Amino acid sequence: MDVLNRVDNIMQRIEELASCSEDPSCITRRFGTEAFIEARGKIFSWMEEAGLSTSVDNIGNVRGRLKSSNPAAKTFVLGSHFDSVSDAGKFDGPLGVIVAIDLLQNLIKENEQLPFHIECVAFSDEEGVRFQSTYLGSKVLTGTFNEELLVKADASGVTLQQVIKNMGGNKEKLVNDAIPAKNWMGYFEIHIEQGPILYEKNIPVAVVTGIAAQKRIELIFSGIAGHAGTVPMNMRYDALCAAAECIIAIENFSHHQEKFVATIGKLDIHNSASNVIPGRVTCSLDLRSIDEMILSENSLHLSDLGEEICRKRNIGFEWNIIQETRPVHCDTKLNELLKEAIAGNGHEVMELVSGAGHDAVAISQVAPVAMLFVRCFKGISHNPLENVEKKDIAAAIKVSDAFLVRLKSYSH
Amino acid sequence: MDVLNRVDNIMQRIEELASCSEDPSCITRRFGTEAFIEARGKIFSWMEEAGLSTSVDNIGNVRGRLKSSNPAAKTFVLGSHFDSVSDAGKFDGPLGVIVAIDLLQNLIKENEQLPFHIECVAFSDEEGVRFQSTYLGSKVLTGTFNEELLVKADASGVTLQQVIKNMGGNKEKLVNDAIPAKNWMGYFEIHIEQGPILYEKNIPVAVVTGIAAQKRIELIFSGIAGHAGTVPMNMRYDALCAAAECIIAIENFSHHQEKFVATIGKLDIHNSASNVIPGRVTCSLDLRSIDEMILSENSLHLSDLGEEICRKRNIGFEWNIIQETRPVHCDTKLNELLKEAIAGNGHEVMELVSGAGHDAVAISQVAPVAMLFVRCFKGISHNPLENVEKKDIAAAIKVSDAFLVRLKSYSH
Repeated sequence: MDVLNRVDNIMQRIEELASCSEDPSCITRRFGTEAFIEARGKIFSWMEEAGLSTSVDNIGNVRGRLKSSNPAAKTFVLGSHFDSVSDAGKFDGPLGVIVAIDLLQNLIKENEQLPFHIECVAFSDEEGVRFQSTYLGSKVLTGTFNEELLVKADASGVTLQQVIKNMGGNKEKLVNDAIPAKNWMGYFEIHIEQGPILYEKNIPVAVVTGIAAQKRIELIFSGIAGHAGTVPMNMRYDALCAAAECIIAIENFSHHQEKFVATIGKLDIHNSASNVIPGRVTCSLDLRSIDEMILSENSLHLSDLGEEICRKRNIGFEWNIIQETRPVHCDTKLNELLKEAIAGNGHEVMELVSGAGHDAVAISQVAPVAMLFVRCFKGISHNPLENVEKKDIAAAIKVSDAFLVRLKSYSH
Repeated sequence: MDVLNRVDNIMQRIEELASCSEDPSCITRRFGTEAFIEARGKIFSWMEEAGLSTSVDNIGNVRGRLKSSNPAAKTFVLGSHFDSVSDAGKFDGPLGVIVAIDLLQNLIKENEQLPFHIECVAFSDEEGVRFQSTYLGSKVLTGTFNEELLVKADASGVTLQQVIKNMGGNKEKLVNDAIPAKNWMGYFEIHIEQGPILYEKNIPVAVVTGIAAQKRIELIFSGIAGHAGTVPMNMRYDALCAAAECIIAIENFSHHQEKFVATIGKLDIHNSASNVIPGRVTCSLDLRSIDEMILSENSLHLSDLGEEICRKRNIGFEWNIIQETRPVHCDTKLNELLKEAIAGNGHEVMELVSGAGHDAVAISQVAPVAMLFVRCFKGISHNPLENVEKKDIAAAIKVSDAFLVRLKSYSH
């Protein structure tokens, strides 16, 4: 089967998975729902059809294994997730799952003998929409699953352990589903970029250097509320104007930084009304960088900047750190192989940092990880407009085929 | 009774009215509620005690009349309102009602003969909290009440006409309650400033030159939503950053304008989340000036400014005018008398524009109007912290006494 036929087959499966949705008017496929079970069945049959030794584990991951002739070999995992956010696109997750199955089917067809086991894993929960806890599938696979989550309930009051049971899983056996840390050789995931860089630069694929560290901060601005008609401009302590000045200062500063993004995504005015001068404003601030030092220094600088702006205005300022995550660095050696595969296929070798999280975050705790980003239309994701062109899927297949061939020479 | 005794009596009545509340933990006295009826009874008895010919009209205004010996004379009205917002202060409205009763009681005691009738009116609905329609009481008094409002329902589904009936009014007779336009001589209201200028400048009272014109505008900023982690700073179309730049530009511009205030009181980010770049932001903009030309020119300038900021950012910009009200100018001659009374009492003559609306807005359609603002603590109003000092009430009484004496020489 040539590459174009493989792409057509992949696109058909993308559509088939997209049809598995809780809501017929859009794509919503949360962990453990009927639509999810339906999708899982399709993936299971595709893995079997590919010739993999297929099973479903207790957290709902679909796993297809291709054994090496050396029983003492380590395991290399290819995968991505098949759950989705609400009103999702077709490609975020499914592209990586379906291409991984295709790659292994091709290996089997080519009768490639590999010096390691390969497992294709379709992760059951990466988005974490239902239980507000990401990476359930990959955490079980790496043995880092926290059992306290089992009693966590979804919005309708159903607990995670009930969902596991309803899907045919056994919560007591989750620990047995892990690939022991000593047996991991590495992990490779194909995923859409979910950002506009490849689209803007007209490049089909990129090697991911790592997943950015993140700080989530709550900013609180405290001024004095007042009547919009009766307080002159020079007697105001307007919390929104202070917040606006900070937003612009943060934007200006961040524009001139390397490897850094800053986003104010939420802004709430306390007791807001069109005829009331805002007395109190709360904002979210999301800071990300692959470089922890940059993240930390820029965060301090922005905190000082906010403090200074508010001091001049006589406005109270709070900077509350809500969450901090460390960066994940992709494996240098795996990335070298991937870059060779990209260059070997005639593409410019583009390196990107992932600003979004992926299953590789959980897996990086036990194994070297690598990711290949595929260009998506205008960088749009988590949206029905999410799209990937066939020629870019073809590029991803050829690069990944070449990567797997190079992987034979890999030792970690 | 000397002025200090009058002030003590007024303060006691302020407290008595404050005790009439729907909610015992705060002051809430909306039109037609039990607390309102209770307050109305107190005001009625105070007017009778003052020696006024007292009645309640069909919209619930309490009206105390002091007749001139000349039956063909016109009527001068003194008044304010006794309804309140939710969780209100004690002085907004009641101060003007209770001082007006005191002024007439004093006239009667002094046996002053006036060449015009005087009517003291405690307006039943100025705040418009219950039916979202301001000035019900003064609209009936001026014959400008719109009968379509009768079928309007409050939050619990009770209509205005039911409330009128429950209070003992007759909706058919509302038209008879109006003082015919030809019989009006003028209107005078004492009210707290509800702003910080007198407090900051350490002056007890001010003459009001007019009530500001207002424009309410909806601003819409349309950018492109995106993932906070995956879109580099220089590829963003962040609607919130555009809004913030406009907020700061509006603040800067307005700071340097005379007779003008601009307020952004509401700001909503469409589908906001801490990890999503804002794609669409809607703001309210409230512009006020006593000078219609200034309001109109500044409004145009700010619209151009917003347009320009958004054009540079490639962000969509909408400027939708929601509501426009014209200014009310207080009567020059009445204000001259008031200024003489202020100066005659040894106070600096301060002129203020009212940025908030008052019953004078409705009455200005049929009669010349004047208002005296009284200093309030830090300009705080519509809040339990609303406060007026006794010495400032004393100043208001003395100024108003002198104003009424001068009014004898007034002809319009």
